[in-house]
Amino acid sequence: MNYLGLDIGGTELKAGLVDADGQILRSETRPAQARNLAGLIDTIGELLVSVSGDAAPVALGVGVPGLISPDRDEVDFAPNLTILNGARIGALLGEKTGLPVVVRNDADLNAWGEFKAGAGQGTSHMLCLTVGTGLGSGLIVDQQLYTGTSGYGTEAGHIVVDPDGRACGCGGRGCLETVVSATGIVATAREGVDNGKETSLRAVLEETGGRLTSKMVLDAAVAGDRFAASVYTSVGRFLGIACSSLINLLNLDMIVIGGGVSAAGRYLLDPAIEEAKSRTYRHTFDSCQIVSAKIGSNAGIVGAALYAAQHSS
Amino acid sequence: MNYLGLDIGGTELKAGLVDADGQILRSETRPAQARNLAGLIDTIGELLVSVSGDAAPVALGVGVPGLISPDRDEVDFAPNLTILNGARIGALLGEKTGLPVVVRNDADLNAWGEFKAGAGQGTSHMLCLTVGTGLGSGLIVDQQLYTGTSGYGTEAGHIVVDPDGRACGCGGRGCLETVVSATGIVATAREGVDNGKETSLRAVLEETGGRLTSKMVLDAAVAGDRFAASVYTSVGRFLGIACSSLINLLNLDMIVIGGGVSAAGRYLLDPAIEEAKSRTYRHTFDSCQIVSAKIGSNAGIVGAALYAAQHSS
Repeated sequence: MNYLGLDIGGTELKAGLVDADGQILRSETRPAQARNLAGLIDTIGELLVSVSGDAAPVALGVGVPGLISPDRDEVDFAPNLTILNGARIGALLGEKTGLPVVVRNDADLNAWGEFKAGAGQGTSHMLCLTVGTGLGSGLIVDQQLYTGTSGYGTEAGHIVVDPDGRACGCGGRGCLETVVSATGIVATAREGVDNGKETSLRAVLEETGGRLTSKMVLDAAVAGDRFAASVYTSVGRFLGIACSSLINLLNLDMIVIGGGVSAAGRYLLDPAIEEAKSRTYRHTFDSCQIVSAKIGSNAGIVGAALYAAQHSS
Repeated sequence: MNYLGLDIGGTELKAGLVDADGQILRSETRPAQARNLAGLIDTIGELLVSVSGDAAPVALGVGVPGLISPDRDEVDFAPNLTILNGARIGALLGEKTGLPVVVRNDADLNAWGEFKAGAGQGTSHMLCLTVGTGLGSGLIVDQQLYTGTSGYGTEAGHIVVDPDGRACGCGGRGCLETVVSATGIVATAREGVDNGKETSLRAVLEETGGRLTSKMVLDAAVAGDRFAASVYTSVGRFLGIACSSLINLLNLDMIVIGGGVSAAGRYLLDPAIEEAKSRTYRHTFDSCQIVSAKIGSNAGIVGAALYAAQHSS
């Protein structure tokens, strides 16, 4: 049997036809722009028809970038796609497709994908951090998706790692995602440039007219720019601080690091692992692997489809 | 039916005879000193006989200040009572008493006591922070005790709240318990005195020959010493930072603050709640109550007894 997985992002809709083993048979993307909710639902409907082709998927899983209400049907708060605020997305897509639908937070389903078909296979207590523009997370407890008392967990991006640090979109300060994210990497790099550090990034900024991405910082590091490498070391250290808190708190057997920023590989993971080790009891540290995601950017659609396979009624 | 609850502390053994509703029928304490493990087991045996009286308890729950192995029987690491390291405490006390025995971390059973018979009754996702000399914690997830992949969770005292802060016994730095604990309160007060703050604590220190306790700091605050009050505000602020991380991460419906230090009441809780509110999404903050423990210092024996009632075989 096949299943549909839909990953609704702030800028892009991605859908996949996925088999019971988590293999993607076909996938497509569309821009997430729409005039209103009805327009967005129409676009999603067309996307799902297209990606289904002549297959007959039996359930649809939907990942949404926001907080999902306890009845798993309504979007309570989607800061990066406000058109969805208050939308009964599950019911609307059920009517549109005739399929049973389950709706969850996108980072939760990303974690579910890595747990069922990626790096986390065989674990029981696993956290997946998705490091992109921001930082999303999903937690697996006793092989089940953990969503908390009202469906809003887990938001590991808002663990405080630097109490007097940068202001965060959540209203707080020094949250993990203000440092460990593409945005955080660029901010850290800019601070260094502004403080007169010797780096090739100064020339990059002149060339791009002031535009800088985390990829540019990584490219500079790979090319031997010591300051650029130190940015990743510093960011990785904060990732490690968060990992130590999470390991001490939850005695996890695995932390999976995914998302676009995880392309930095050892530049990010080595300092993170070193820092986490220095801040944890040996017993709990030794119980936990910190690894890169395996499925990567398609984990969201794989997780959505496999979650629907198991949990749609 | 009645049950025995035993709370093994670093300095004191406390045992209680508890009924199925969590009412303590009788309790006793003994010093935890012993030459060796056999001596400690003998002392515990005598204590349990004494507290049982002519009742016939049907199970024994034991709280241990350390990490308990996955099979729930052996103490892997008890930093404050090293005589227990490696002890198969469950088997030894089973032989001694003839009762079915369950062994868990003391802070976990403290949390279980507050969950079943105290402030946390009726919740589903609850964390109990026990703030004493250090800071212990226990987490309830879906009305079950959460202990993690190898039984070592949860150690909320080792969430990092101040990355470059005080050195912690765990080898890390700036862990929650370096600030939010009796030890942390005294350290914060001493720093202020050393930095020349105007405070009645200077006279207290002269009077005691340099000895200071968190209770003395609280007494000064209650008597109107503004610096002493500011120590609790500062410590409460870090408690709030940790609460915000925990609420954002776990979408809890309650955080219970217990332990000796929680006697500070609003001096500690008000700044904690204010800080947590400023660092969380409204949706998740509104889902969570931050309250004082109800059972208090006997929660450990109540939790141990009620856990044994439900989980001993």
